[in-house]
Amino acid sequence: MLAELRITPVGAQTTFVRLIADLPPIPAESPLQYRVHAMGTTLEGDLDAILDLVRRCHQELRKHADRVLVELSVDDRAGGEGELVRSLEHVRALSGTPLERLVHPS
Amino acid sequence: MLAELRITPVGAQTTFVRLIADLPPIPAESPLQYRVHAMGTTLEGDLDAILDLVRRCHQELRKHADRVLVELSVDDRAGGEGELVRSLEHVRALSGTPLERLVHPS
Amino acid sequence: MLAELRITPVGAQTTFVRLIADLPPIPAESPLQYRVHAMGTTLEGDLDAILDLVRRCHQELRKHADRVLVELSVDDRAGGEGELVRSLEHVRALSGTPLERLVHPS
Amino acid sequence: MLAELRITPVGAQTTFVRLIADLPPIPAESPLQYRVHAMGTTLEGDLDAILDLVRRCHQELRKHADRVLVELSVDDRAGGEGELVRSLEHVRALSGTPLERLVHPS
Repeated sequence: MLAELRITPVGAQTTFVRLIADLPPIPAESPLQYRVHAMGTTLEGDLDAILDLVRRCHQELRKHADRVLVELSVDDRAGGEGELVRSLEHVRALSGTPLERLVHPS
Repeated sequence: MLAELRITPVGAQTTFVRLIADLPPIPAESPLQYRVHAMGTTLEGDLDAILDLVRRCHQELRKHADRVLVELSVDDRAGGEGELVRSLEHVRALSGTPLERLVHPS
Repeated sequence: MLAELRITPVGAQTTFVRLIADLPPIPAESPLQYRVHAMGTTLEGDLDAILDLVRRCHQELRKHADRVLVELSVDDRAGGEGELVRSLEHVRALSGTPLERLVHPS
Repeated sequence: MLAELRITPVGAQTTFVRLIADLPPIPAESPLQYRVHAMGTTLEGDLDAILDLVRRCHQELRKHADRVLVELSVDDRAGGEGELVRSLEHVRALSGTPLERLVHPS
């Protein structure tokens, strides 16, 4: 199943980016497929592994911040495996429009 | 400011992927930076342009589906421009771990 | 249509509760039905009025906080009017279990 | 800590309200404080109990629906106990405006 996780530490001593940069080892050590993006991390795998990831990320950030906000979205469809890559490829194949427009800051 | 938009049509005649594939022209016609990913689209720009995009995507999907679910997240920080690209580059530079692990379905 | 709005000011001079307490006049001045709860405000009305409320609440909080987080969820179903009250009454009528358990702090 | 859970079954044989009406025993059997509202259920308690509730609700709905959407929001603040009731009472005490306007459908 697909999921998306966004965790926001509030009131930390360290900078936001520094705290977030310490998190990628946690999905990397999990059995999940994942991709970090600008507003969170998309995930694919079992619900238990997803909820375990939520627990570990929360625990890690809570050490450094007085307040931690978590937003988890799960989309569980029958027969949906390999969706993290495939869903985007389908949309790309069907859509006549580019799927991104990004201005790289100089 | 950064945002993320996920719109889910429910009970449509057409397939989900077909409906979603018709949406990318809407951000492409807007003044926003955007990137479609597996669980939604990340956006950068003014709040008015973001809310206008919500309205247009909702309107388009509502033509084809009896029920439309919208999830919009906005993260507005003072002085945060070019964040859609830069925030990820910062995390990549600081983190010693890859920011994704994807299994491409064969 | 039904919606839920949660707005979180971060890094404000004033306390969180003080800032949030100043917001209720904004839905009260709108044409929306609304109910404030512990994690946000549920809303019922037109999408334009809902998006206008997002804009006004964001604008008000942004005066006092360097960072503002917004989470908006919309559930738009054909023929769904009066849902803010009715949906809960339906669930209450059908469910044999109390719909809340709250411990009032002394 | 405070949380909010919204679970949406899609493509079920039974009606949405019927499915949702079967869920309240699950929080009632948990150690959590909870209140069902029109767009989800607010919760207060430990993260483990919250994540366990997500697992059980998902499991129950997945029996009846081919697709299940989950939205979980957690707000964990140091020293925040009894918040589910108290946060609202604080806002009510400070705000000069009613915290709801509901039209009861006839």
